[in-house]
Amino acid sequence: MSKFRLAVVQLQVGGVKADNLSRARGLVKEAAGQGSKVVLLPVRLAVTHLHAYRKKKGFIFTQLFNDAACCSTGSIPEEDCGKLYNSCAVFNPDGEMILKHRKIHLFDINVPGKIRFQESETLSPGSSLSTFDTPFCKVGVGICYDMRFAELAQLYGRKGCQLLVYPGAFNMTTGPAHWELLQRARAVDNQVFVATASPARDEAASYVAWENATYLADIRQQIPITSQRRDDLYAVTSLQGESG
Amino acid sequence: MSKFRLAVVQLQVGGVKADNLSRARGLVKEAAGQGSKVVLLPVRLAVTHLHAYRKKKGFIFTQLFNDAACCSTGSIPEEDCGKLYNSCAVFNPDGEMILKHRKIHLFDINVPGKIRFQESETLSPGSSLSTFDTPFCKVGVGICYDMRFAELAQLYGRKGCQLLVYPGAFNMTTGPAHWELLQRARAVDNQVFVATASPARDEAASYVAWENATYLADIRQQIPITSQRRDDLYAVTSLQGESG
Repeated sequence: MSKFRLAVVQLQVGGVKADNLSRARGLVKEAAGQGSKVVLLPVRLAVTHLHAYRKKKGFIFTQLFNDAACCSTGSIPEEDCGKLYNSCAVFNPDGEMILKHRKIHLFDINVPGKIRFQESETLSPGSSLSTFDTPFCKVGVGICYDMRFAELAQLYGRKGCQLLVYPGAFNMTTGPAHWELLQRARAVDNQVFVATASPARDEAASYVAWENATYLADIRQQIPITSQRRDDLYAVTSLQGESG
Repeated sequence: MSKFRLAVVQLQVGGVKADNLSRARGLVKEAAGQGSKVVLLPVRLAVTHLHAYRKKKGFIFTQLFNDAACCSTGSIPEEDCGKLYNSCAVFNPDGEMILKHRKIHLFDINVPGKIRFQESETLSPGSSLSTFDTPFCKVGVGICYDMRFAELAQLYGRKGCQLLVYPGAFNMTTGPAHWELLQRARAVDNQVFVATASPARDEAASYVAWENATYLADIRQQIPITSQRRDDLYAVTSLQGESG
């Protein structure tokens, strides 16, 4: 793994799609201009409300970014064969889409008196692990709730990823409780870097995102849990397909 | 799972084995007298220094605790067929040993300028997962460094454990960095309670333990990651034996 600059863009995501995308494009260019080689964007760049997914079909990924001298990624709605997905597209410095991760785990939670959110009422889940290569390291991609599932990160680690990125948007209940904890856990358990991007907090929005970002240094040489793993006793295995 | 009182005993572990055990017995009785149904003790109750393992062979587990009206557990050296293990014995309220977990992952780390510790120079690793039943819930057992390996906790969770216990003794480098984080990660990822016990900190000792203890509430109903796990995409499997 070689050293490189990663930018995490936590922009305000508002109700006007064109404004969000325009602002995102500008920030990606700015980050690239400052030497960032990978730029991470938050989820729901194109629409802010879940119900809006139904109206915003057929978003054209490949027009999102180009000529930014970096890989950039963020999540937007995608329509395919009549189904809607929460998808993270990754673009290379030439603006070509090199990966598309469809959120594997849909966010259906019910914390009584605090929040109820049923993503599966609108969206379909993806069914592929998603990794992409950069000149610096291999990167694994998950979206938001995917971060709660340790197995996904473990598989990415076993596949050689040294950076995991999760565009996300935890809320004001799960955010303070778990947003940082989950990132640190994925990083320490798998001895990889972890980066997340959330929309900037907007107290006036119907879904208030709790933003923060963390990553940890690689200490694989010092605490060699990768080589000391008891592969004779247990296994974490992938049962299906993989993108990238 | 029914409600019960768990005691975590973080006693001072000194150089005199008989004193340690006498103090431990007294504290287990005290905890039981206060209504604790499971009592967790730290590692190295019998010896404080790694090199002392070589001299303290054949420790008799079954004389450790009896008649305490609770299940109690802590780690001590065990000799078997010429090999030494770091073992956690679990005793039922009648003083009978109902489980023995041999530490699976030996603690071999090297943080330059801070700590070098090679447990494998002295000890042999166990090769079994270890669970035991109480009237309240099923319990999974690991020892210290075992806690770094997420797979062990995942398997215990899948086997129905609702409490994981790790007698431990992280040091002054790894303790502040990871002791609490790992417990919280195991708890949140598997939606189980996690309890650990460390020897009390003794700044004068050659190995200074960093003590703390944490457990989290069960929110399986609210954030149903157990049922939303994508068992069609990945699997965490046990490849070998199990105790208990």
